[in-house]
Amino acid sequence: MVTVYGDSVSGNCYKIQLLAALLAIPMKWVEVNILNGDTQTPEFLEKNPFGKIPILETSTGDIISESNAILHYLADQHNITGKDPLTKAKVLQWQFFEQYSHEPYIAVARFINLYLGLPADRLEEYQQKQEGGNRALASMDLALTTSPYLVGDELTLADVSLYAYTHVADQGGFDLNRYPAILAWINRIESLPNYQPMQCGTESKS
Amino acid sequence: MVTVYGDSVSGNCYKIQLLAALLAIPMKWVEVNILNGDTQTPEFLEKNPFGKIPILETSTGDIISESNAILHYLADQHNITGKDPLTKAKVLQWQFFEQYSHEPYIAVARFINLYLGLPADRLEEYQQKQEGGNRALASMDLALTTSPYLVGDELTLADVSLYAYTHVADQGGFDLNRYPAILAWINRIESLPNYQPMQCGTESKS
Repeated sequence: MVTVYGDSVSGNCYKIQLLAALLAIPMKWVEVNILNGDTQTPEFLEKNPFGKIPILETSTGDIISESNAILHYLADQHNITGKDPLTKAKVLQWQFFEQYSHEPYIAVARFINLYLGLPADRLEEYQQKQEGGNRALASMDLALTTSPYLVGDELTLADVSLYAYTHVADQGGFDLNRYPAILAWINRIESLPNYQPMQCGTESKS
Repeated sequence: MVTVYGDSVSGNCYKIQLLAALLAIPMKWVEVNILNGDTQTPEFLEKNPFGKIPILETSTGDIISESNAILHYLADQHNITGKDPLTKAKVLQWQFFEQYSHEPYIAVARFINLYLGLPADRLEEYQQKQEGGNRALASMDLALTTSPYLVGDELTLADVSLYAYTHVADQGGFDLNRYPAILAWINRIESLPNYQPMQCGTESKS
């Protein structure tokens, strides 16, 4: 069985919990608290010199970092990675979009607000994140007006990756009511069999 | 045959040229100039509403964006994507690292210096990029002390993705002499059969 080290309040970590639930993949979860410095201990840095979560440890002790790479490892034998070369590439396209054009705005704004409590010295940065975040949400909304999921008619890893921070984007100051196709897509995902909500964050820290 | 729209001086576009050369994949290349506004014309935006290059157009008219996703589409039937689930995941790990922890520092510093001529109002941002860029290079150097390529003994898409901006990192103010394992890896890649250098940039704009 694989072991995943992550912080349940992090969207990047939740992606993995959601995928494992949807596909009924067994894994051991080790809770790691970023703000307590758990990722900077010598023990953790030996596993991941980058000092970042999530990481997956295979049964043979190999380590994989980067949330979206971990999703592909877990789903390697499943159609959710894309059924053909074009679909596979479109799944990856949305995942790279997520890491370059979505997460650096929406997840960072959420971090500043939810984790740090919107301190005065981060307010300008928080405000600067709004434009890029709304641009990313508009791109998703446009795509979701033409198909129920980001890559066609079926759920793929693209949806798992982008759902994680999108469905809690309000915690970063984004108004999802501006994006009706995103709201419908969120409802669609939350109605899936075995759907698992984010374990904490909304109630305990917002 | 596929058509790729790109700017040869962009590392994200060059990745695709390099892969196509190494694997001898035929493609049609359409040169697009970002600074001239070629990506903001109605014609281009119809192909890619994001207004970004590179994009790949398949023979059936489907569009794929995100450079690393395009690499996977082109190399789908080749071992260079990784031979097994673990290797595939490690290739993706480095590619997500590239887009999140490498490109936003090294490529952006290079853009400010090489494309914009290091204007005074971008100097502070340029300087702020140095720490993150050097952290990314140090991570690569550490990995390359234990294996000749980023994921083991053979060239993978991870190397193609990371070579693109790393080998011209000096144009963003980074001193590669601090990273001997990276220098050896660059020599290794440049000695490969069918290696193709970046078509312009170094001579014409630096």
